[in-house]
Amino acid sequence: MADTIILGTIGIDTLKTPFDKVENILGGSAVYAAYAASFFTKPGIISVKGTDLENSKLEFLKQRDISLEGIKTEGKNFRWKGEYEFDMNEAKTLATELNSLANFKPYIPEDYKKAKYIFLANIDPEIQIEIIDSIEKPEIIVLDTMNFWIENKKQKLIEAIKKADILILNDGEARELFKTPNLVKAAKESLALGVKAVIIKKGEHGSLLFTKDEHFNCPGYPLENVIDPTGCGDSFGGSFLGHYSKHKNLRKAMVYASVIASFNAEGFGLENLKKISMKDIERRYEEMVALREF
Amino acid sequence: MADTIILGTIGIDTLKTPFDKVENILGGSAVYAAYAASFFTKPGIISVKGTDLENSKLEFLKQRDISLEGIKTEGKNFRWKGEYEFDMNEAKTLATELNSLANFKPYIPEDYKKAKYIFLANIDPEIQIEIIDSIEKPEIIVLDTMNFWIENKKQKLIEAIKKADILILNDGEARELFKTPNLVKAAKESLALGVKAVIIKKGEHGSLLFTKDEHFNCPGYPLENVIDPTGCGDSFGGSFLGHYSKHKNLRKAMVYASVIASFNAEGFGLENLKKISMKDIERRYEEMVALREF
Repeated sequence: MADTIILGTIGIDTLKTPFDKVENILGGSAVYAAYAASFFTKPGIISVKGTDLENSKLEFLKQRDISLEGIKTEGKNFRWKGEYEFDMNEAKTLATELNSLANFKPYIPEDYKKAKYIFLANIDPEIQIEIIDSIEKPEIIVLDTMNFWIENKKQKLIEAIKKADILILNDGEARELFKTPNLVKAAKESLALGVKAVIIKKGEHGSLLFTKDEHFNCPGYPLENVIDPTGCGDSFGGSFLGHYSKHKNLRKAMVYASVIASFNAEGFGLENLKKISMKDIERRYEEMVALREF
Repeated sequence: MADTIILGTIGIDTLKTPFDKVENILGGSAVYAAYAASFFTKPGIISVKGTDLENSKLEFLKQRDISLEGIKTEGKNFRWKGEYEFDMNEAKTLATELNSLANFKPYIPEDYKKAKYIFLANIDPEIQIEIIDSIEKPEIIVLDTMNFWIENKKQKLIEAIKKADILILNDGEARELFKTPNLVKAAKESLALGVKAVIIKKGEHGSLLFTKDEHFNCPGYPLENVIDPTGCGDSFGGSFLGHYSKHKNLRKAMVYASVIASFNAEGFGLENLKKISMKDIERRYEEMVALREF
């Protein structure tokens, strides 16, 4: 039975980097987050896919003990085209086709409703709220978002954040949401909304944790070859909750999440995540310990 | 007797931030670096000032046991006007008057030539080379620079770097100098030039150390109120060498340097550095230890 629910998108992505191009590969926030979480926990996905995405393409997720029971199939699949410039930092969206995501009404399997841990990956905040309200006794709700919702559904997003325990967003989103260039101020504003912790992701610069009482600076793993950053934020969020749900240590969970996101960036799509084992993860975790000591 | 030589500029700065403006205050890379170094060591400055800058304005440096013997007085003082945008990240230069810096021929007091530690702050690389060649038996040479020299005197700058032990530059400069967006690659290129260590400063994101064998990720101190970032890079470099010369620990020296640079940003010019004591520095250092543990 799934102990962790992952709400998010299933996408068909076309990506261009300064070095290469791939067309129509599997992506989406739920896929990255669930795969990453599955290193630590048993995720169940809530999402929608189109009839143009064969079930066989998701088979590898089942082999990771990820439940696909909450995935509806209808209409045409959500598609995203993105491009990364020379610095590989921010994705430029070239085209978005929402398709079946446009009127998505989530299906929540009965046994999902007993899950304790929920990761609400980037998706419409109205759906995030619906999921929160449908789970019987959630222990930890982690919420991610993106600039699109800050710009288009800010009030609903704030409402969703107020229902969450841990908010994850990137530095640009934090600045935009709270209208301040200062991340410490943005973090305080987040906490004032009622979340117990806020995590600000800064790409290659690592991530920051703020709670009422503490601040943690999580390093980024130094990558020499970034192939494709797509899904790094989602795999960070998914593995963060996966690890946290088991060990209840915010800091260690962030370091593991950072490690898994770094592997994610070393291949197109899920390519590299599929290759790594817990042994690889533990080895890189030890490197993180060493690059941090003084 | 000065044990650490600081080569750099003495400036008269006019600064504008989104919140305030100050005119004609003392600045310059040598002033910031020497003041910051004086928390740990006895610096001697090599620089030039104009007749329009009264000696009394530098009196506070003498009280810190900083030798001013290597400061020439001639012509009109170097002046810089800069502005910081909303994000307080990068200075936009509005005006530069080189004045007496334009044809600066350094004067090196005899006893400076016996110094073991040299910090070559941002200044013409030809002058940096001249200083390196004038010191009898330097043990550690730390070199800083800026984009102006990368763009205008790249060959001379490379020559200077080859004579240095530790290279300090910011992330933008590293990317520009080695024509790569990837900081790990830029660091490897730096080491290939022969330096034993390279430190890449990333402002609020902290700094990175690379040597042949190790990588260290030094956190940035989380500041809620950045008043004026002018001189942060110089105070980082000066205090880094000051601490390193005493304790020979690259990582700890970077953390102390990061702490001192963070205090520097909390006031206009040297205003806040002048207020702090070693006790304040040690307290913030302990905070750095805590925000790093996992």
